[in-house]
Amino acid sequence: MTNPVVQKVNPMLTEERAKASFPVEELTYILDGGKFNTEKRREIEELVTKDPNFEHPPIQFMTREQQYSLAVKKALLVQQRLKELDMLDDPYASYFFRRIAMPREVSPIGLHWVMFVPTLMGQCSDEQRERWLQRALNYEIIGTYAQTEMGHGTFLRGIETTATYDPSSQQFVLHSPTTTSIKWWPGGLGKTCNYAVVVAQLHTQGRCHGVHMFLVQLRDESTHRSLPGVVCGDIGPKMGYHTIDNGFLQLNSVRIPRENMLMRNAEVQPDGTYIRRVSNEKLTYGTMVFVRSLIVSDAARGISEAATIAVRYACVRRQGEPSSPGAPEPRLLDYPVHQYRLLTCVANLLRTMPDVLEGRTERLPETHALSAGLKAVGSNRGAACVEECRRCCGGFGFSEASGLPKIYNDINPACTYEGENTVMLLQTGRHLLKCVERARRGEQLAPSDAYIRSRPTPQPKLAGGPLTADLLLGWLRWRSLSMLLEVSGRFNSFIEQRQAWADAFQAVSRRLTRCAEAHCILYVGQAFLDSAKAAENPKICGVLTSLCRLFLLNEVVSGAGDVQLSRSDLARCQDAIDSLLTELRPNAVALVEAFDLPDRMLCSVIGRYDGQVYEAMLQWARQSPLNATDVHESYELYTRQFLAGRSLAKL
Amino acid sequence: MTNPVVQKVNPMLTEERAKASFPVEELTYILDGGKFNTEKRREIEELVTKDPNFEHPPIQFMTREQQYSLAVKKALLVQQRLKELDMLDDPYASYFFRRIAMPREVSPIGLHWVMFVPTLMGQCSDEQRERWLQRALNYEIIGTYAQTEMGHGTFLRGIETTATYDPSSQQFVLHSPTTTSIKWWPGGLGKTCNYAVVVAQLHTQGRCHGVHMFLVQLRDESTHRSLPGVVCGDIGPKMGYHTIDNGFLQLNSVRIPRENMLMRNAEVQPDGTYIRRVSNEKLTYGTMVFVRSLIVSDAARGISEAATIAVRYACVRRQGEPSSPGAPEPRLLDYPVHQYRLLTCVANLLRTMPDVLEGRTERLPETHALSAGLKAVGSNRGAACVEECRRCCGGFGFSEASGLPKIYNDINPACTYEGENTVMLLQTGRHLLKCVERARRGEQLAPSDAYIRSRPTPQPKLAGGPLTADLLLGWLRWRSLSMLLEVSGRFNSFIEQRQAWADAFQAVSRRLTRCAEAHCILYVGQAFLDSAKAAENPKICGVLTSLCRLFLLNEVVSGAGDVQLSRSDLARCQDAIDSLLTELRPNAVALVEAFDLPDRMLCSVIGRYDGQVYEAMLQWARQSPLNATDVHESYELYTRQFLAGRSLAKL
Ligand SMILES: Cc1cc2nc3c(=O)[nH]c(=O)nc-3n(C[C@H](O)[C@H](O)[C@H](O)COP(=O)(O)OP(=O)(O)OC[C@H]3O[C@@H](n4cnc5c(N)ncnc54)[C@H](O)[C@@H]3O)c2cc1C
Ligand SMILES: Cc1cc2nc3c(=O)[nH]c(=O)nc-3n(C[C@H](O)[C@H](O)[C@H](O)COP(=O)(O)OP(=O)(O)OC[C@H]3O[C@@H](n4cnc5c(N)ncnc54)[C@H](O)[C@@H]3O)c2cc1C
Repeated sequence: MTNPVVQKVNPMLTEERAKASFPVEELTYILDGGKFNTEKRREIEELVTKDPNFEHPPIQFMTREQQYSLAVKKALLVQQRLKELDMLDDPYASYFFRRIAMPREVSPIGLHWVMFVPTLMGQCSDEQRERWLQRALNYEIIGTYAQTEMGHGTFLRGIETTATYDPSSQQFVLHSPTTTSIKWWPGGLGKTCNYAVVVAQLHTQGRCHGVHMFLVQLRDESTHRSLPGVVCGDIGPKMGYHTIDNGFLQLNSVRIPRENMLMRNAEVQPDGTYIRRVSNEKLTYGTMVFVRSLIVSDAARGISEAATIAVRYACVRRQGEPSSPGAPEPRLLDYPVHQYRLLTCVANLLRTMPDVLEGRTERLPETHALSAGLKAVGSNRGAACVEECRRCCGGFGFSEASGLPKIYNDINPACTYEGENTVMLLQTGRHLLKCVERARRGEQLAPSDAYIRSRPTPQPKLAGGPLTADLLLGWLRWRSLSMLLEVSGRFNSFIEQRQAWADAFQAVSRRLTRCAEAHCILYVGQAFLDSAKAAENPKICGVLTSLCRLFLLNEVVSGAGDVQLSRSDLARCQDAIDSLLTELRPNAVALVEAFDLPDRMLCSVIGRYDGQVYEAMLQWARQSPLNATDVHESYELYTRQFLAGRSLAKL
Repeated sequence: MTNPVVQKVNPMLTEERAKASFPVEELTYILDGGKFNTEKRREIEELVTKDPNFEHPPIQFMTREQQYSLAVKKALLVQQRLKELDMLDDPYASYFFRRIAMPREVSPIGLHWVMFVPTLMGQCSDEQRERWLQRALNYEIIGTYAQTEMGHGTFLRGIETTATYDPSSQQFVLHSPTTTSIKWWPGGLGKTCNYAVVVAQLHTQGRCHGVHMFLVQLRDESTHRSLPGVVCGDIGPKMGYHTIDNGFLQLNSVRIPRENMLMRNAEVQPDGTYIRRVSNEKLTYGTMVFVRSLIVSDAARGISEAATIAVRYACVRRQGEPSSPGAPEPRLLDYPVHQYRLLTCVANLLRTMPDVLEGRTERLPETHALSAGLKAVGSNRGAACVEECRRCCGGFGFSEASGLPKIYNDINPACTYEGENTVMLLQTGRHLLKCVERARRGEQLAPSDAYIRSRPTPQPKLAGGPLTADLLLGWLRWRSLSMLLEVSGRFNSFIEQRQAWADAFQAVSRRLTRCAEAHCILYVGQAFLDSAKAAENPKICGVLTSLCRLFLLNEVVSGAGDVQLSRSDLARCQDAIDSLLTELRPNAVALVEAFDLPDRMLCSVIGRYDGQVYEAMLQWARQSPLNATDVHESYELYTRQFLAGRSLAKL
């Protein structure tokens, strides 16, 4: 890959590494969820690194089609190796394996295990499970999850694809009645998969029963040709995700057996009678919360990669007026502005620790509503921090050589899929309005909502004592409640004026999204502090607590516009931020390197472990396809004539 | 291009268009700088649209190399046509022509006219002009501007390339002594250009005289082969800018005649004596301010394109719970949150009116210092607004079909080149510190700095009367001054503690960047209001003033964290924003359509004039190269074996 051989390490990096005030390896264990995991991860990384099957030239120089083809090969190879190594049932091992074998190469079969298999698990009757799940787990079939249509994403109930039951043949007829009903976006749908779970409106006995799921075969199992009535293909190039064939699917009266409706929660009997079972909403919510937590940790992974690259680069990059004649130029990390830009990203990264850890979904909030907002905040921040790290690298950050554009373009769509972020914040906001109402009625609230009351509390003073994390959290709690009460007050006054609930909701929606953000930040800040405090080693606990304070202070300062904060309080917060930057700077490299991301994963010329940036940059650029010849063919074709003043018109 | 044939217009768009409260065409004239310009522009657009030479399949389906080759062809064709049409000397006509012929396709010869020719104009002696300028203007040679090196961008004085004068041969020896001294980034340097202005450290008679400019021939004029000692090539793929060959250049003791030093401001005589002339800094600053103003208007152009796409789409996209059973789903533009997201972008767009207009660089501030900050604010906001518009389009915003990813990736690097934005803000900040000092000494300040005093002024009350634009501007002026005085107070206390100037500056740098932003926003807000008021038609004046208020209110609310604002004032501002959204919504389409961007320029399936989004989307996707066959070759190569349980290892 980009830089397999670690060269003599740049002394500037060695120097920075020596400054760490805490045992980096111990933090690595914490981040991996235990020493055992760290060791396993490293073993697997070594395994993949040694395997020549995973060697190839940098993908940045390939066309999209080449990237796709390579990704298919690698994704299948990964599965095969995992099977050979008997690791298929170990979620950690397979996660580590995929991550290192396909760094930031979105897998064309990813939907199979993220959505297809979990949906079969959750939505099949026991009998259906038996029939399909094993085949899916064995990869005898490859499936995707087809919900979104050209015309409908957010509003699921608007979906137009129909599944009409025909009792005479005991089949469902799956049909796309309009252009807008064509399925659009599902990963792997275009070329890779041969099956899909299709979401469609169920019609039977002349009535529509709303959206249900159906297992539809798309391609012949032996030729892979698309089946009669199935029109599917790739939706074309995107901002990122080049390696995956997000696809479209038009169904022209495609018939599937009655048994292909996923029947855990509802059933259509042979005669067409519709029976709804008491549905287990927890299961459905469970999958959603699981996928959302994957998104949050994927965003964190994006920040960890980008921050590792940008912080290392800031240690070896010198730029600017020397402090005295003859002295070397300052390093980027010497500039307080630069420290601020990078360290706030690092703080944003480590605040996600509790989510990243061990896929601890049990620490993801009990309530489905909170997970919506956390998904939005996590992916928004993820994209923003990666972009900040990218810009921190100057021009190189714009080159694919840095690896940063790819990280940005690959985590960015998470702001849209699995629930667009604004819509997600509104979902959390709606829940918060209900919490105020419940509080007014004296009902009990879930732990993360417990601070919500129906009356304001006095503003905590920031002046006086030291600005501890607890004090700052108290302030953020107060902020969140104040904003919420103001908005719910407005909302109630609309209701009292006899506005419809939906209209009153719309009228406060803009401000409600800010409330939802404030609520999520509070949750996240508390979780950050909890996990900082949980660190046994006092040095690690110390540095994490400082980072947590930086995170909280930054929220207080940048969110001060939402509520009133006195100038002197603001000034104290600003001073505290400045001190924290100085305090944390020596640990900047150690903090990102605790994530222990190998060069093979970063794929970054400027983020290399050895810090030997410039030679590698030249080597990398020489591989650009445009450099295959000294004189490019466009010269013979066009430029020669032009320079000679001859007309190009007939070209 | 994407959608040449306008179909029957979607009635939802027709309806929205009918809601305009002002004559759209008149605003178009204003934006174009007069009816005459509008007509000329349309004529030229028609000319290009009819010319089959500019026809080609959508570039999103091409490889980077194909895109580059096509861009060379088109860029040269544009020049040729302009010459045939005798429009070369008309900056407007050529601007319009390029824009429509190469929509968002960064020109491989762009640096020739943006930097190479202007540098020759500004830095050549009269005699040198005669020799080279005419050849450059006639495109007998194609040049670029090579300043940045791998090791140095921001800190120009650190540049390492040397130009050592050898009196015996009366030549300069141009040399790259290290890897870091290799020129990196110049546009068109890789493959296209045959000449470059090279920035290098001048050595003569054993002394170094700092950076100077030299005209260096890179490639043979008849074969285009790189000359002996010249190693140049493409720097490889980037986040955007696919159509241009940003290049590298290593000079191995390349000799050029003494006369190739650009000698307007300094000279090396035949015997090697160095003579510095009184330099005309205005000229150098003039070029800088010119390029920065281009960047600001390019960012505005990006917003205008993105906003046109997103606003039109928001009119035709229905999504969500109908207000009553059987009613159609709401349009995106019906959601207040969505109105807010889009209309703040539109406000940010129209606030740049004064800069966009007629390339009115005379309205760009007299001071070089302000232009640095305006460059930063303009490009930061440009990127942020385009990204917001992109996300407003849901999943489609991530597809290249929308045109939005390209707009983002193409305007984004403007945050980095021509002075990285943080560095630019610090430049303006440094100037502001000096202004406080001058104010203290009772000296006169430039008009845009005139509000700066050495003592605070009382906070203007927002309560009481209506929140007029003037009142809001007064508040922002007060905010800017308050922040600045606080920071300069800190700065002075460091100086009093005998810290070095540079250290004191670093200590306040983080906060100073916020001061610089606040100062620029104030300037921009005032300019926005001035141009709104200047509109003769009272309806246009009305709608622009409302937009200006939205812009200002949003700044007050989001910048409130920097200073103290009472909760009741905040609440009033929020209410005012809500009312403005309702007031402005009917004009949303009219406002973006006043920019009159033809489909050919937008290259967007979802931003089409006719609003027929979905059919076009399907058509577009079908052209994806992955769809050339039903079964992709990766199936035969890998998937078949895999599904059959056979090993892939030997592939
Ligand atoms: C890379 C990628 C991969 C994907 N993979 C899959 C997949 O495997 N399977 C699948 O089924 N789908 C997939 N999707 C589709 C994805 O789930 C949808 O894009 C997403 O649900 C948003 O729906 P939409 O695109 O229709 O946007 P819309 O719902 O049309 O929303 C557009 C805009 O309107 C706003 N908006 C919508 N409703 C409201 C409201 N009520 N209030 C305020 N604002 C509103 C949103 O904020 C958004 O900005 C994928 C998408 C992407 C980008
Ligand atoms: C698309 C593109 C086109 C370009 N075209 C050309 C061209 O035609 N010709 C040409 O000569 N160059 C060109 N450039 C180069 C461009 O001018 C440089 O990238 C730019 O000047 C920044 O320099 P750098 O990349 O070396 O970043 P650096 O100067 O190394 O800066 C890196 C980071 O450090 C921070 N930093 C640096 N100094 C300070 C400081 N004093 N205080 C605080 N922070 C600091 C910056 O904010 C930045 O985030 C181009 C670049 C791009 C991306």
